[in-house]
Amino acid sequence: MRLCEMTKDELMAFKNEVSKEYEAFKARGLNLDMSRGKPAADQLDTAMGLLDAVNSESCLCDSTGTDCRNYGILDGISEAKKLFCQMIDVGENEIIIGGNSSLNLMYDTIAKNYIFGVNENATPWGKQGNLKWLCPCPGYDRHFAITEGFGIEMINIPMNSDGPDMDMIEKLVAEDESIKGVWCVPMYSNPTGITFSDEVVKRFAALKPKASDFRIFWDNAYCVHHLSKDRDYLLNILEEAKKYGNEDMIYIFGSTSKVSFAGAGVAVMGASEKNIAYYKKLMNIQTIGFDKINMLRHVRFFKDFAGLEAQMETLASLIAPKFETVLNALETNLAPLGIGDWHKPKGGYFISFNAPNGCAKRIAQLCKEGGVTLTGAGATYPYGKDPDDKNLRIAPTYPPVEELNLAAELFCISAKLAAAEKLLGE
Amino acid sequence: MRLCEMTKDELMAFKNEVSKEYEAFKARGLNLDMSRGKPAADQLDTAMGLLDAVNSESCLCDSTGTDCRNYGILDGISEAKKLFCQMIDVGENEIIIGGNSSLNLMYDTIAKNYIFGVNENATPWGKQGNLKWLCPCPGYDRHFAITEGFGIEMINIPMNSDGPDMDMIEKLVAEDESIKGVWCVPMYSNPTGITFSDEVVKRFAALKPKASDFRIFWDNAYCVHHLSKDRDYLLNILEEAKKYGNEDMIYIFGSTSKVSFAGAGVAVMGASEKNIAYYKKLMNIQTIGFDKINMLRHVRFFKDFAGLEAQMETLASLIAPKFETVLNALETNLAPLGIGDWHKPKGGYFISFNAPNGCAKRIAQLCKEGGVTLTGAGATYPYGKDPDDKNLRIAPTYPPVEELNLAAELFCISAKLAAAEKLLGE
Repeated sequence: MRLCEMTKDELMAFKNEVSKEYEAFKARGLNLDMSRGKPAADQLDTAMGLLDAVNSESCLCDSTGTDCRNYGILDGISEAKKLFCQMIDVGENEIIIGGNSSLNLMYDTIAKNYIFGVNENATPWGKQGNLKWLCPCPGYDRHFAITEGFGIEMINIPMNSDGPDMDMIEKLVAEDESIKGVWCVPMYSNPTGITFSDEVVKRFAALKPKASDFRIFWDNAYCVHHLSKDRDYLLNILEEAKKYGNEDMIYIFGSTSKVSFAGAGVAVMGASEKNIAYYKKLMNIQTIGFDKINMLRHVRFFKDFAGLEAQMETLASLIAPKFETVLNALETNLAPLGIGDWHKPKGGYFISFNAPNGCAKRIAQLCKEGGVTLTGAGATYPYGKDPDDKNLRIAPTYPPVEELNLAAELFCISAKLAAAEKLLGE
Repeated sequence: MRLCEMTKDELMAFKNEVSKEYEAFKARGLNLDMSRGKPAADQLDTAMGLLDAVNSESCLCDSTGTDCRNYGILDGISEAKKLFCQMIDVGENEIIIGGNSSLNLMYDTIAKNYIFGVNENATPWGKQGNLKWLCPCPGYDRHFAITEGFGIEMINIPMNSDGPDMDMIEKLVAEDESIKGVWCVPMYSNPTGITFSDEVVKRFAALKPKASDFRIFWDNAYCVHHLSKDRDYLLNILEEAKKYGNEDMIYIFGSTSKVSFAGAGVAVMGASEKNIAYYKKLMNIQTIGFDKINMLRHVRFFKDFAGLEAQMETLASLIAPKFETVLNALETNLAPLGIGDWHKPKGGYFISFNAPNGCAKRIAQLCKEGGVTLTGAGATYPYGKDPDDKNLRIAPTYPPVEELNLAAELFCISAKLAAAEKLLGE
């Protein structure tokens, strides 16, 4: 029976029953962390060969003969460009290989635009007064933290099952010159798990923003992170944008943080050749170059893009059962009661749970007190403010399956309790 | 006989003789690069063990049990802090471990101050109108490129044998609130090779700038780069500054770029605990953390600071003969003729040659046409403009000794030719 169909007495009885389960659970004294999208140790173990890919016996020269131990090469060694341009689906001349963090590349791109402007002729964002940014949400808290840090006003954009509300985005960017950017995780979105439809990608590519320095931050973090062969496909936004002369409007980001090592991977940025040339000019005052040995290590470990895809299949075999565990728990325990809704993602790192309105904080609190830390309720919205207090991000990868089973059980108990309390007006 | 004591006929004869030597040299068709302070291959070879310091059999946890393969730890693993705080002579709580480039940390520190201000209460530099910067010169071209890139007006400060002209610096910072910083390479300075005297360090530490957000960028790039046991010593500026409550005025930078690998080392920033706390807060929106495996690799390779110092002794045994080669050539060929002057450094990466006024560009041109590329004349001054056209930076480390011998020979021939031309009014 669905919770909303219960009489008050039935609800009270239900709540009492669930409370007992909750207290029993709490007594176990668990201490589990499901707060961040972190790889588990067994995932990291699959990449240990990376550490042997170069050693003291290796030739440390790249394919052009450049000694990767020394200074030089601002934008990455050519074999790394060849490999990673396939990962983010851009040309070899449309990529820069950075350090270990794509988040840092995004921050840095905003910082450069803020200080120097989006190109030689543009007024720096920092000299233009109040700035605004479009934030499809629920979204990625670290994206929102960057724009908040820069003092940029964030505007919530609803996320649908095929991507952000494009009617709203088209209207806003056409009207308001102070809107300078939009955050997107277009594939297996963080946290909703959906992939933008071809139509949504085409509408992004064809945007006619009032601000000539409006930019799309296309964080393709999960482009190769399929959970099985039944995968999503994402249209190539840079190629689409070229059809409208909009290619300079797009910055694409990716990394191997969840392919090799989260703490020691390689991050990349894709963009039009014009944007790449401009960023290289700015990078030239910033650094002599990023870690080329780590680039070489990655190329020699994966060998080619097929090797990287094989690594992702290995990882999927470890991750997919964890998604199953959580989804089965939700399906079994919550679906029959009509509590909340969720998308079953085909890749990525998260399950996004929409609780009944006004219940997310309470569920997170109950989980916390029961021994499981979730991503804070509200974190998936700009300023940490979920207007409906409904969204929770579940990150299934980090705990071992047996712990995840317990955590999912506690999550469902907490959701039931919070939903019952809500209906009872407590 | 000194060139300036020659009659015109003697000079003409001298010039003809040197011209023949020059043409004979040119005919050899050399192609040598002495433009940048790059380590030679044999130096890099001494650090190859770094690549075996962690491998697929290693435990990748740091001393606190954190898995360095995963996300986490914003400011560096604790054993890296322990090691590198000794290198740059700060406390364990006064250091941040960054990526592979200290130049990037300097750029980023300026960018943060420009966007967010030097602390929570400060007006961002970027909101303060025209900014100025003090540039002791000859100095490091990449420093000047950063401040030029930010549109900051650079003011030349003469370099003396004990450091920059402190009378001028004290006067300027006391008067002008738009002066926000000063570049310093306090030990084995780039390019002059001198080390700041205790008095100069004390005067820096005691500065009373009109701008409360004036900052000293103390690029201690060569702090462990002694050429022999007969080394310089640098007073600890952070400790000195604490005596005046000026500790927040100092940022210290260093790296292992010329200790391990120039392309894949570890960079660090030292500062007061208050500054470190503030930067960590800003870094928290920028990245999840830098490459911890590379930090671990360095700590395990060097083991401790004594191990790092031992590595520097090995490197000195390779580099010192190269400095000797160049200095001997200058001493033998130019000193008797009274052409130019230079300092004999006890460490670092450069020999700074002061040609007769108006001769530097000509010498660089002659060297270039003769087959040896030097750092461009003027590069050691802001905007690439050496007001006296006299300074040339010689980087002896990169070529093998036999090539260096040839390069030094060509340099001396070119200097003789340019000096003779100058005296003849050509």
